[in-house]
Amino acid sequence: MQCTLAFDVYGTLFDPQGIERAVAAFAPERATEVAAMWRHKQLEYAFRRGLMQRFKDFSVCTRDALRYCNELYGLKLTDTDEAVLMEAYNLLPLFDDVQQALQMLGKQHRIYAFSNGCKPMVESLLENAGIANEFNGVVSVSDVKSFKPDPKVYTHFLREANSHPEQTWLVSANGFDIIGAGSVGMRTAWVKRDPAAAFDPWGAQPELVVESLIRLPNQLPVR
Amino acid sequence: MQCTLAFDVYGTLFDPQGIERAVAAFAPERATEVAAMWRHKQLEYAFRRGLMQRFKDFSVCTRDALRYCNELYGLKLTDTDEAVLMEAYNLLPLFDDVQQALQMLGKQHRIYAFSNGCKPMVESLLENAGIANEFNGVVSVSDVKSFKPDPKVYTHFLREANSHPEQTWLVSANGFDIIGAGSVGMRTAWVKRDPAAAFDPWGAQPELVVESLIRLPNQLPVR
Repeated sequence: MQCTLAFDVYGTLFDPQGIERAVAAFAPERATEVAAMWRHKQLEYAFRRGLMQRFKDFSVCTRDALRYCNELYGLKLTDTDEAVLMEAYNLLPLFDDVQQALQMLGKQHRIYAFSNGCKPMVESLLENAGIANEFNGVVSVSDVKSFKPDPKVYTHFLREANSHPEQTWLVSANGFDIIGAGSVGMRTAWVKRDPAAAFDPWGAQPELVVESLIRLPNQLPVR
Repeated sequence: MQCTLAFDVYGTLFDPQGIERAVAAFAPERATEVAAMWRHKQLEYAFRRGLMQRFKDFSVCTRDALRYCNELYGLKLTDTDEAVLMEAYNLLPLFDDVQQALQMLGKQHRIYAFSNGCKPMVESLLENAGIANEFNGVVSVSDVKSFKPDPKVYTHFLREANSHPEQTWLVSANGFDIIGAGSVGMRTAWVKRDPAAAFDPWGAQPELVVESLIRLPNQLPVR
């Protein structure tokens, strides 16, 4: 059966912790901690802006989260440093299972990138990584001015991809994304690359759990 | 001038990190880390449930966050252990500047507790700490089935306290709370007990910053 696969981008295709290498130039002693906090605040700001109905582009959440880290850790970043780090965010590394998995899945399914990021930012990420051609399209939450896991961003995806929820899989390493997609009836595959990762115990569980995207082609139901 | 003061409860009057002592019985080696993660996930779950419009009582967010920690850290909590820890959450320690500040402020202003927690939970916290009589009332977000910083919880407060935003101060140690209250025109005092704390650099700033609640009576404008 042909399905529509909605791939989350940050954390699922690309590794946000990969920013650590760029961060190390400015915080050599605590690059891991700063990179993790940057990601943590980026997501928190998206949740809060969604809840406040005060939408700004995800790049604004990302920049504000960097500025928070700058103050918290006393990094003393100049405007140029900030620009360097923001640019590095457009060159995040792919997880190493992505390319092969996309090529396998693309033979049978319709494949979309579905992201909190705005379309130009996501398109440039995919281009830079050389995987733009694997996708049938890019859908951004920006069109509806909210963020995952607001239910309206998932119904927006279904509309844009012209796909029924029963034939649409959200593929994500982010628990909030799985629970959000499940709440509108989409099917869900949680990418659990880290064996120690815990799934949010809200009750709703992902339909599939894969330790690598490579496992996905064989796990998706045949009919 | 008599003002209405809306005191945030968790993190402002009571110290959520104080749960560390109870946690230490189950995770002696990493009680600080587990307590911090418990608080972090509790807030994240509230933001996400607000954004998803899938409200559950804050006590459910608190319990789910504990269960997440249980799985992440492999704590192997029994049902009884969970009940013990949830009960400990009703006995969080007061910050040591609270009692004196409330007594001073109560002479001139109308004082409310305004919390993500449901009313019975907050009332029992205030009773247990012996400060219930300092408050003119308790307002909970539960009445409008969302969480801070959803703008509607702040307008709900204003309605319940029958107070104009220009005469109403949100007093909180939580940046998300300050920004949320500011977005509906309330006045804001950020309690920055930790000198290293960073304020979210979204643009909006608190009108007052106090390092201790004791400083608040002298900082509130006379007219």
